[in-house]
Amino acid sequence: MNFIKQIDLAYIAGFLDGDGSIFFQIIPRSDYKQKFQIRTSIAFYQDTRNKSILDWLKEKFDSGYIRNRKTEISDYTIVDFKKVKEILTLLKPYARLKKRHIELGLEIINLLENKKSLSDFLEICKLVDKFKEINYSKKRTINLEFVNRVLSP
Amino acid sequence: MNFIKQIDLAYIAGFLDGDGSIFFQIIPRSDYKQKFQIRTSIAFYQDTRNKSILDWLKEKFDSGYIRNRKTEISDYTIVDFKKVKEILTLLKPYARLKKRHIELGLEIINLLENKKSLSDFLEICKLVDKFKEINYSKKRTINLEFVNRVLSP
Repeated sequence: MNFIKQIDLAYIAGFLDGDGSIFFQIIPRSDYKQKFQIRTSIAFYQDTRNKSILDWLKEKFDSGYIRNRKTEISDYTIVDFKKVKEILTLLKPYARLKKRHIELGLEIINLLENKKSLSDFLEICKLVDKFKEINYSKKRTINLEFVNRVLSP
Repeated sequence: MNFIKQIDLAYIAGFLDGDGSIFFQIIPRSDYKQKFQIRTSIAFYQDTRNKSILDWLKEKFDSGYIRNRKTEISDYTIVDFKKVKEILTLLKPYARLKKRHIELGLEIINLLENKKSLSDFLEICKLVDKFKEINYSKKRTINLEFVNRVLSP
């Protein structure tokens, strides 16, 4: 990642608070030891006509990909685990609306980096559920209960 | 207006770029010499559950009003002419997506402050039309052509 000035980090934190999203997903992975992967994402959205701002962000963060959807909305998404951690750490001092999200997100990532057992993994799934609550996510997605059911002997 | 730190201005510029709006409207006013008023607005929108950020902005700018709509979206709008000028001037160095809007907006406000004749006023209406274009506004609203028709002898 390139060096990012404080003033740009404050701008990006504002942009993320206004129009961005941080989210965690539990994804089924038959080839994984624990059958599920935790996916970490930071996403920024914009009218495709204003895509230049997403290009600018991508250049700053030096990671992720930009998609132009048919709905004339483009999004820039970073899913790389280490990058997400790095970016959340950089934005934390400047974020307002998403400060709680960033703190909980970093907690999840730290646990992910240090997980040793199934119970560690289930603890992480619990925090992912909690994250969805603070995101007001109403979509039915894979949660701790589901993981527990699949993984219980 | 309270003193606002650079880092907060950068954050607000990002928030405005992500989720805010600057717009100009031509409003019919039978009691006005030129029959129309130019209304200047800066608006920030948020899910009502995140209304605290709008309260924070209102405290910073010390002007405007917050409305909670039935749609669970709240908005914070500043229409005071002098305040809009002051805020746009403060945010200009930090804005990215809306830099062009801010420049054109300040041009309109400067002309408004110095208008002397009907032709000055029509020049302002022309810039308001141009502003709607860069805002991609598709709503049918009062434009230069309409003003011209009403005001032509």
